Amino acid sequence: MADYVYGPGRTHLFVPGPVNIPDPVIRAMNRQNEDYRSPAVPALTKILLEDVKKIFKTTSGTPFIIPTTGTGAWESALTNTLSPGDRIVSFLIGQFSLLWIDQQQRLGFNVDVVDCEWGRGADLDVLEAKLRQDTAHTIKAIAIVHNETATGVTNNLATVRKLLDAYRHPALVLVDGVSSICALDFRMDEWGVDVALTGSQKALSMPTGLGIVCASPKALEASKTAKSVRVFFDWKDYLKFYKMGTYWPYTPSIQLLYGLRAALDLLEEEGLDNVINRHTRLGTATRLAVEAWGLKNCTQKEEWFSNTVTAVVVPSYIDSGEVVKHAWKRYNLSLGLGLNKIAGKVFRIGHLGNLNELQLLGCLSGVEMVLKDVGYPVKLGSGVAAAAAYLSNSTPLIPSRI
Amino acid sequence: MADYVYGPGRTHLFVPGPVNIPDPVIRAMNRQNEDYRSPAVPALTKILLEDVKKIFKTTSGTPFIIPTTGTGAWESALTNTLSPGDRIVSFLIGQFSLLWIDQQQRLGFNVDVVDCEWGRGADLDVLEAKLRQDTAHTIKAIAIVHNETATGVTNNLATVRKLLDAYRHPALVLVDGVSSICALDFRMDEWGVDVALTGSQKALSMPTGLGIVCASPKALEASKTAKSVRVFFDWKDYLKFYKMGTYWPYTPSIQLLYGLRAALDLLEEEGLDNVINRHTRLGTATRLAVEAWGLKNCTQKEEWFSNTVTAVVVPSYIDSGEVVKHAWKRYNLSLGLGLNKIAGKVFRIGHLGNLNELQLLGCLSGVEMVLKDVGYPVKLGSGVAAAAAYLSNSTPLIPSRI
Amino acid sequence: MADYVYGPGRTHLFVPGPVNIPDPVIRAMNRQNEDYRSPAVPALTKILLEDVKKIFKTTSGTPFIIPTTGTGAWESALTNTLSPGDRIVSFLIGQFSLLWIDQQQRLGFNVDVVDCEWGRGADLDVLEAKLRQDTAHTIKAIAIVHNETATGVTNNLATVRKLLDAYRHPALVLVDGVSSICALDFRMDEWGVDVALTGSQKALSMPTGLGIVCASPKALEASKTAKSVRVFFDWKDYLKFYKMGTYWPYTPSIQLLYGLRAALDLLEEEGLDNVINRHTRLGTATRLAVEAWGLKNCTQKEEWFSNTVTAVVVPSYIDSGEVVKHAWKRYNLSLGLGLNKIAGKVFRIGHLGNLNELQLLGCLSGVEMVLKDVGYPVKLGSGVAAAAAYLSNSTPLIPSRI
Amino acid sequence: MADYVYGPGRTHLFVPGPVNIPDPVIRAMNRQNEDYRSPAVPALTKILLEDVKKIFKTTSGTPFIIPTTGTGAWESALTNTLSPGDRIVSFLIGQFSLLWIDQQQRLGFNVDVVDCEWGRGADLDVLEAKLRQDTAHTIKAIAIVHNETATGVTNNLATVRKLLDAYRHPALVLVDGVSSICALDFRMDEWGVDVALTGSQKALSMPTGLGIVCASPKALEASKTAKSVRVFFDWKDYLKFYKMGTYWPYTPSIQLLYGLRAALDLLEEEGLDNVINRHTRLGTATRLAVEAWGLKNCTQKEEWFSNTVTAVVVPSYIDSGEVVKHAWKRYNLSLGLGLNKIAGKVFRIGHLGNLNELQLLGCLSGVEMVLKDVGYPVKLGSGVAAAAAYLSNSTPLIPSRI
Repeated sequence: MADYVYGPGRTHLFVPGPVNIPDPVIRAMNRQNEDYRSPAVPALTKILLEDVKKIFKTTSGTPFIIPTTGTGAWESALTNTLSPGDRIVSFLIGQFSLLWIDQQQRLGFNVDVVDCEWGRGADLDVLEAKLRQDTAHTIKAIAIVHNETATGVTNNLATVRKLLDAYRHPALVLVDGVSSICALDFRMDEWGVDVALTGSQKALSMPTGLGIVCASPKALEASKTAKSVRVFFDWKDYLKFYKMGTYWPYTPSIQLLYGLRAALDLLEEEGLDNVINRHTRLGTATRLAVEAWGLKNCTQKEEWFSNTVTAVVVPSYIDSGEVVKHAWKRYNLSLGLGLNKIAGKVFRIGHLGNLNELQLLGCLSGVEMVLKDVGYPVKLGSGVAAAAAYLSNSTPLIPSRI
Repeated sequence: MADYVYGPGRTHLFVPGPVNIPDPVIRAMNRQNEDYRSPAVPALTKILLEDVKKIFKTTSGTPFIIPTTGTGAWESALTNTLSPGDRIVSFLIGQFSLLWIDQQQRLGFNVDVVDCEWGRGADLDVLEAKLRQDTAHTIKAIAIVHNETATGVTNNLATVRKLLDAYRHPALVLVDGVSSICALDFRMDEWGVDVALTGSQKALSMPTGLGIVCASPKALEASKTAKSVRVFFDWKDYLKFYKMGTYWPYTPSIQLLYGLRAALDLLEEEGLDNVINRHTRLGTATRLAVEAWGLKNCTQKEEWFSNTVTAVVVPSYIDSGEVVKHAWKRYNLSLGLGLNKIAGKVFRIGHLGNLNELQLLGCLSGVEMVLKDVGYPVKLGSGVAAAAAYLSNSTPLIPSRI
Repeated sequence: MADYVYGPGRTHLFVPGPVNIPDPVIRAMNRQNEDYRSPAVPALTKILLEDVKKIFKTTSGTPFIIPTTGTGAWESALTNTLSPGDRIVSFLIGQFSLLWIDQQQRLGFNVDVVDCEWGRGADLDVLEAKLRQDTAHTIKAIAIVHNETATGVTNNLATVRKLLDAYRHPALVLVDGVSSICALDFRMDEWGVDVALTGSQKALSMPTGLGIVCASPKALEASKTAKSVRVFFDWKDYLKFYKMGTYWPYTPSIQLLYGLRAALDLLEEEGLDNVINRHTRLGTATRLAVEAWGLKNCTQKEEWFSNTVTAVVVPSYIDSGEVVKHAWKRYNLSLGLGLNKIAGKVFRIGHLGNLNELQLLGCLSGVEMVLKDVGYPVKLGSGVAAAAAYLSNSTPLIPSRI
Repeated sequence: MADYVYGPGRTHLFVPGPVNIPDPVIRAMNRQNEDYRSPAVPALTKILLEDVKKIFKTTSGTPFIIPTTGTGAWESALTNTLSPGDRIVSFLIGQFSLLWIDQQQRLGFNVDVVDCEWGRGADLDVLEAKLRQDTAHTIKAIAIVHNETATGVTNNLATVRKLLDAYRHPALVLVDGVSSICALDFRMDEWGVDVALTGSQKALSMPTGLGIVCASPKALEASKTAKSVRVFFDWKDYLKFYKMGTYWPYTPSIQLLYGLRAALDLLEEEGLDNVINRHTRLGTATRLAVEAWGLKNCTQKEEWFSNTVTAVVVPSYIDSGEVVKHAWKRYNLSLGLGLNKIAGKVFRIGHLGNLNELQLLGCLSGVEMVLKDVGYPVKLGSGVAAAAAYLSNSTPLIPSRI
């Protein structure tokens, strides 16, 4: 197995998840199991539950740290707040919104799908029309990805909130923040998000294994009457153990708890807003490179540009799958594939999580060489130059080193 | 946080899960994330899926390695094979069978509970009576824990199979092997088990995070018509990705995959039957110590003695919770609490997973000192002497060192 | 290779070095290289040099953290303070004092060897006689091991100081504290020790790789005129870099520096005096076990009993090498061999470093079984019982858990 | 301490040592201590001693793996083969040859220094003249660095051998291969090198801590009569333990032994010649970038270009120390300082060890931004473009991924 993956030097991991783990997090997780019923683990958990709220920018929310993935976090958000047959307005804008909608349908909800072109954001005009018509409040929830990982599109959640307020509509707002939280500006309380969720392997920069779900008071209230069948994902069990002060209805991963502690410490040290600025910087630099290469961003308008992932459209005579394969085979560079409808047409550069400027520039330089390899007439150095020109003006000194 | 748990020397972890992780497994998991869509991770997964069958002693089963805990594995076993309202015969013999029954009920099944005294095994006479009467085959499944972790009781699965065969009853056999598989003799194919499951943090000696579920061909067939609502736990999604050769419907933990590889390699090196023999040895030694202390085993008959956990009954004038608390506070020794009905009455010694003779003897010596501390007139050294007398005759040389 | 050493469960490491490393130290060392000329490493080093003085109980000493072993630390102590032909009084009481004397001779000093029976401490009456006679102060240094690891003998350094003071003798006192510092009561300033040294893999509970040498002002003064040829071990180079604030004349191990930081933090947390008390406790318990087994301690008098290592004399019909071999082959227990003169006659139990009561009791129980295996009529449980009786009365609660 | 060094993302380590450690080596070292006198460690050592010869390209040499640094390895090479007063011809071409010469002088040898301009290679014409004149064979050794790390100069060892052969001169050839072995073409046997040495933290890509010295049969023979005082570094002690099959005269670092095992495995997997080719590629790419920036290489002629480190001369109006400081403070990039004579005038890019193309390109892009920051009118992207143009043509597919 070792043989198969071995390449000298560091792997350049630029898929939009799982992402690079900081060394202090790896170190923190390098440990034995512990008895989770001893006083130590609840003490650790108590503080984690308090601190993890910060990544959602919430003070009123209740977080659940669930041993699962983003897919499980989705299921937790839906089944705890809704009953079979409930109407959900959902926006189909890429592969991950598609998968979530598929889940919503299989869980028995009445999904009112707003289908949009891939590369565009959620059509909020359609949402407005639906809210206007829905005086009977048949819409129980709006389900929306904050950032569609397949196309690099960021939706405007503030507008969603404004529309709901404008129509005094009580629908719950369920947000997939998997590729946004800890990287993009996300404001659970201010935007009136009812359930927000992410996975540990995304911008938190940890291994896969934690689905982190945060519920507003309104969502918690809804969970009392929601009739969807659930046990493993049931918030009730967590709340019962929260009250008892033991916190865990079933065995948590000791390693991931200590890893989360370290990850939150690093976020605190850098400052969440600095982290978001760093992602803005890296996202902007990437887009400038793409432009310099003469290639198109899959995202159609600047308002939707994502600072965590950029989907790059290749010319029709190139198979984007070849770009990804070649990057891995020749330069130890992992890029994201185009998925489903846009398979072969785009490749993706993930620029989220624990990453800095020179790592990105190394990646961009690698993409240039790969583009040349697959027959695209790129000018080597052009994208790097464009990105560096911007980064050279915008990168701050590392605060701890001033 | 560090302060709170710090004690010099090694923590003596003798809860029945999570258990001690071997150093090579910790080492194997000390790693970065990787792109799970590169060719490397599917190649690794393919072999893991093949090799993991051995811990179930199955060749015809289909394994699912799910990013979840034992509770999620339970849910996976039930929802993929059964429909709401289906009749399940379940045996209530301790806290973990109780929790599983609770899940079965909340998932909407018609649970026919066979209630037994805690400390006794599943009443198979009652099962026989039910099977005899059920000529209409209304019983769709038998759900049974192989080893009840709360009481240290091992059920006889071979007899369950014999009864089903005797009455030519088609009920599915769903087995919770959480505290048995990789430690006790378990034979999926020979015993006609339809779904068997375990968690990574038990006898596999890994961190929490993998629910490993294995389905017989009959269970897979049942999954095609089972109407229970499921998405995250749906085997269909896994099977679809198995066919595509990419294996993962959602992001796996890279670290746990490499950890599982290392854990299976260690099992292979020691030999599964040697592992089982080692557990027999450690279980027997523990019971001899308990006897020497003049205390009672919670397990009422030898036929149910568990080689992975021993629940020790304390005299009525002692609170077993004090034993556990004191062990942790003074000797850095983690023991299992008595749960629910038997809280305060028993404490538990977990002797499963990556453990050897001297570790156990250190633990037993600690238990002796703790018993003395809480006021039980134990003769120090008595249990250790009894255990050592047995171990001294039964422990083989370490094969690699002969 | 893996095959060759593999045994299930934890290795019981009871040689008197290298010893068990605490998990936080292993974690701290799990890291990449860094540029040691960046501002970070000197900043780390500066604090380490300050904090490491505490393990010597000195405020006036100057420490050198040298990338070497104890043997190198010896050489550093000698060559920096003495000139070829200088007279050293040295005590030969076991294998390690023998090796040091061999080094002294090969380095060209005039070694005045005080030969003692192995199992006895340094003969300080002879020292007194020599000092009395040496009115011309031809004795330039007293070289003495604080704790002879081969025989488990602790010398009385306070008496050495008293004698020197009584005779107003200016000889330097050079102390090998390899198996004592951080475990036994050691007072550099109070006892007027001029050079004290230890190795990282002993009671500091780290990997091998650091020779830590501490020089008194008088020793530093002596180094200015000492004519022994030295470069790698020359304190002058260190002092030059100390002054420049860059600290390192050649590349240090980044990993060991962070490991030392963690090790010192743990010492601080437990408290050095508590650490010393813990060693007293474990040493006493071990000796009680040996007595209960009916065996003799190699150390002939209580005043020399070592709390870091116990050398156990086996009956003449037993080869102590067999004890060691058997312990490793059957019980994954590493004991120390008898060395040189006492090869075959003693085996050694190291009880120093990061170790607690139950680990020791597990070891003692293992020794009992091994003794039985090699034909010694031990009563199983007898040593454990004696040790536990003592430990049960003397072990404090873990302070952080009260 | 953590605060002080923290910067988001990966540190870009481009000093010429210590270098980046591959993850498998870090993993292999993440382990407990072991008894080095058990049968396992000698078995491991035996194979290591055999395999380590390959990095020297020798079959007749005898390697010593010494717990020390490069400075200690130098001392070992000198003191084992020479006697005080012996004449050594040494070439002063930069800071590291200067330090070695300083050591030679302090060890009491008669050093015949051939002083050359920094930036030029050893003047072999002078060597020839000296050999020609030395018919009495007063020259006992030629001491030469294969690669001067301070200036990025590689000396031609084949020519040294040719000259010695031409004059049938018996002088020993002692080679500092610290920044060459495992990275540059080095042929101990073919070039008749008598002692070659390196340190673990250089191209072997491990932590600091092992000085690896390899002695030819002629050097071993010389060691029998060499009169330099030595104990810690004495080969005799090693040879004595080699013969006994226990291998270690004093305690080795268990962690570094397993790390060396992993490092040698990776070298074997990539193939030493492929490793050397990779260094050629990275060195060439770096030089092309320097040229594109309009800067001068400190190395004056192509014949001396080093493939492990490039010293870049900055214009006189720039302080190269600022380049290094700024790189660290703003871009988390560690570059090498100019040392001694060339302090302030050059900065160094280390491109040795476990490194690949995109890492280097990220570094080069960082250097460009730093140059701009300190006021040099660099065209951003120019160096990267030049390097990438070359790498894009010369980088092979990763063999294990074809």
